Amino acid sequence: MRILTINTGSSSIKYKLFDMLGPELLIAGIVERIGEAMGRIKWRAWNNGSQQSETREEVVPDHAVGLARVGQALTDSGVVEDLRALDGIGHRVVHGGERFREPTLIDDNVVSAIRQQIPLAPLHNPANLAGIEVARRACPEVPQVAVFDTAFHQSLSPAAYLYAVPYTWYERYGIRRYGFHGTSHEYVAGVAAEFLGRPLEELRLITLHLGNGASAAAISHGRCQDTSMGLTPLEGLMMGTRCGDIDAAIVPYLAERAGMSLEAIDAALNRESGLLGICGENDMRSVLKRAEAGDPKAQLAVEMYALRIKKYIGAYLAVLGGADAIVFTAGVGEHAAAIRALACAGLESLGIRLDEHKNQTSSASGAYSIHAEESRVQILVVPTDEELAIAHLAQRCIEANG
Amino acid sequence: MRILTINTGSSSIKYKLFDMLGPELLIAGIVERIGEAMGRIKWRAWNNGSQQSETREEVVPDHAVGLARVGQALTDSGVVEDLRALDGIGHRVVHGGERFREPTLIDDNVVSAIRQQIPLAPLHNPANLAGIEVARRACPEVPQVAVFDTAFHQSLSPAAYLYAVPYTWYERYGIRRYGFHGTSHEYVAGVAAEFLGRPLEELRLITLHLGNGASAAAISHGRCQDTSMGLTPLEGLMMGTRCGDIDAAIVPYLAERAGMSLEAIDAALNRESGLLGICGENDMRSVLKRAEAGDPKAQLAVEMYALRIKKYIGAYLAVLGGADAIVFTAGVGEHAAAIRALACAGLESLGIRLDEHKNQTSSASGAYSIHAEESRVQILVVPTDEELAIAHLAQRCIEANG
Repeated sequence: MRILTINTGSSSIKYKLFDMLGPELLIAGIVERIGEAMGRIKWRAWNNGSQQSETREEVVPDHAVGLARVGQALTDSGVVEDLRALDGIGHRVVHGGERFREPTLIDDNVVSAIRQQIPLAPLHNPANLAGIEVARRACPEVPQVAVFDTAFHQSLSPAAYLYAVPYTWYERYGIRRYGFHGTSHEYVAGVAAEFLGRPLEELRLITLHLGNGASAAAISHGRCQDTSMGLTPLEGLMMGTRCGDIDAAIVPYLAERAGMSLEAIDAALNRESGLLGICGENDMRSVLKRAEAGDPKAQLAVEMYALRIKKYIGAYLAVLGGADAIVFTAGVGEHAAAIRALACAGLESLGIRLDEHKNQTSSASGAYSIHAEESRVQILVVPTDEELAIAHLAQRCIEANG
Repeated sequence: MRILTINTGSSSIKYKLFDMLGPELLIAGIVERIGEAMGRIKWRAWNNGSQQSETREEVVPDHAVGLARVGQALTDSGVVEDLRALDGIGHRVVHGGERFREPTLIDDNVVSAIRQQIPLAPLHNPANLAGIEVARRACPEVPQVAVFDTAFHQSLSPAAYLYAVPYTWYERYGIRRYGFHGTSHEYVAGVAAEFLGRPLEELRLITLHLGNGASAAAISHGRCQDTSMGLTPLEGLMMGTRCGDIDAAIVPYLAERAGMSLEAIDAALNRESGLLGICGENDMRSVLKRAEAGDPKAQLAVEMYALRIKKYIGAYLAVLGGADAIVFTAGVGEHAAAIRALACAGLESLGIRLDEHKNQTSSASGAYSIHAEESRVQILVVPTDEELAIAHLAQRCIEANG
């Protein structure tokens, strides 16, 4: 079974093709700068042991042409004849609102329901829909599945997903916690269960997706109980450029004191905050390097970042009534040993003890553990793979509906 | 030593007079509706075993007349000749910003420094200042002390008090976590240490001030390490009418979707949210009664309220690396056994186990414990007394400066 995953942005289409036997990655590519003066096409393919790649510039006027270039890459690389020969397409969709609790086979009704969620994700859902629409037109006979960033978190209880704001705001405007990165949290939870050799249904896990965006999830018996991102991806952990948890009164206070518009404040909280806001840099590798070299702002940023993770570990231990494992994933989670060490430091009395040697030296390609033998809670590093997860979910959905 | 505590609001002066030997409460009163068409004067005094009280209506045009009525109550009740015979006055001041780390003897410089904090507390500090100014004029020879709600939290580290927003917002506009209820957190921590028979300097405590406003504090060795209220009292736990933690992006989202002004959103988050927003009522006694009678919205409100406390308990266990005791205080904390039970439920694996019998039946007038014998973390109920705490702090400050 050959499944293509598509992640469509406002001016880009990222894609990967998997042979689900294996599973094996056949091609990975991106069509960028769609609608701009000059576009760019990049892909790399693996076919019977040989590797091919291409990078070229070319005008890509719209998403339809962009998708045609994806099909052309599939043909040129020889991994599949063309788009119509696919067994399925999995589309990443950011916001499924309350309507979508799981990956869903796309038909006209689903498209219109995704469109209804646009107010909740005004930047992302329209782009995701553009990808869906051109793909449905290009290969109407290929089953296509929408895989939602929010779906995994739909298992939260009302007490966990409601904010303590006027209840009518929930009813009228859908104001509640949705959570994001659901595909990644679900995927690493599954891999962690396999690694631990225990059924996911028996485990209590705290998963920490620490990329440029970052979120935590409390997962009990395979179901998400709580997560740190909220109505939008702004809430929760400190991120590369997003603030995470703050006093919401900062918004009116700043409007009054600094005379900033609501749009400017919103933009600053999303794009000029987090690590960037504190030390002028949002790439954790550079921040850690500067911190090690003694830069006080970079040290502060690192300390803040780790402290917030630590507080979520504690909060989710309380939510779950204890945990079997803590799972670090995504760029920072997988590669920044110093952050993992700081986030777990001082938690020994809660049964969490890192093995500093394992933490620093492990270089396994798959999942590995970094806790000390006597640690009651296991601590794992699990590489995430959102595209493979989307492909798996799409496959399962197609087979269930087949 | 006779110390008067004064808590001045925009249209009221609340006061208590203590004989610090004992200490013994001599008189408690309030002058209300200052500046309104008709004011009200109420007090109750205890003098050599007999009790006296008065309630009457009278026009009180301004705070100066209001304070004169306080002086008159002192004289009429016979507890002290008049204001000038006091040994000290302790004024509650909401916001001390970063300037005030402890109770401070008031002089002209202090008054002007309190005035400089007005942008941080535009509703409270001007009223507090009005009380200070009329009291200084009425009895310039009596030492007067400003006791700040924020001072106890000034021990937070930068990593704990900074938000992950552009650093210039801190430098230019003072945007950081200040925390409130500091006098209460400090007071109950001290009483808890006495109750436990151990020096405060050896203890790690999580104090939960659950009144109509509510906040949590993580206290290690007598110093506050973290607290849930932030730049303003809006952040943190769910409260009677305040939302506590929310996604800050709700503010711009709501402005866009509902066409609400920033002022209206701010007011709604402060005055129409919390318990009131979820179930239409902000008094926990009524909410619990309705919940017990099966009202689903009241049950939801209770569940949300307890879940948020539980998450802070977990987060602060992580911040402190374990705790010796959890301390419940203020109206809800002292009287709502059901909330205490729900907040601690399921935390056994973190060493927290309530004794449901003790929790339900204890009716000690002072501090008492409600944990099971095998609980690693002690769980205490400690009645708070902010006025007595202010009097103690004022006394200590006067003696140190005397």
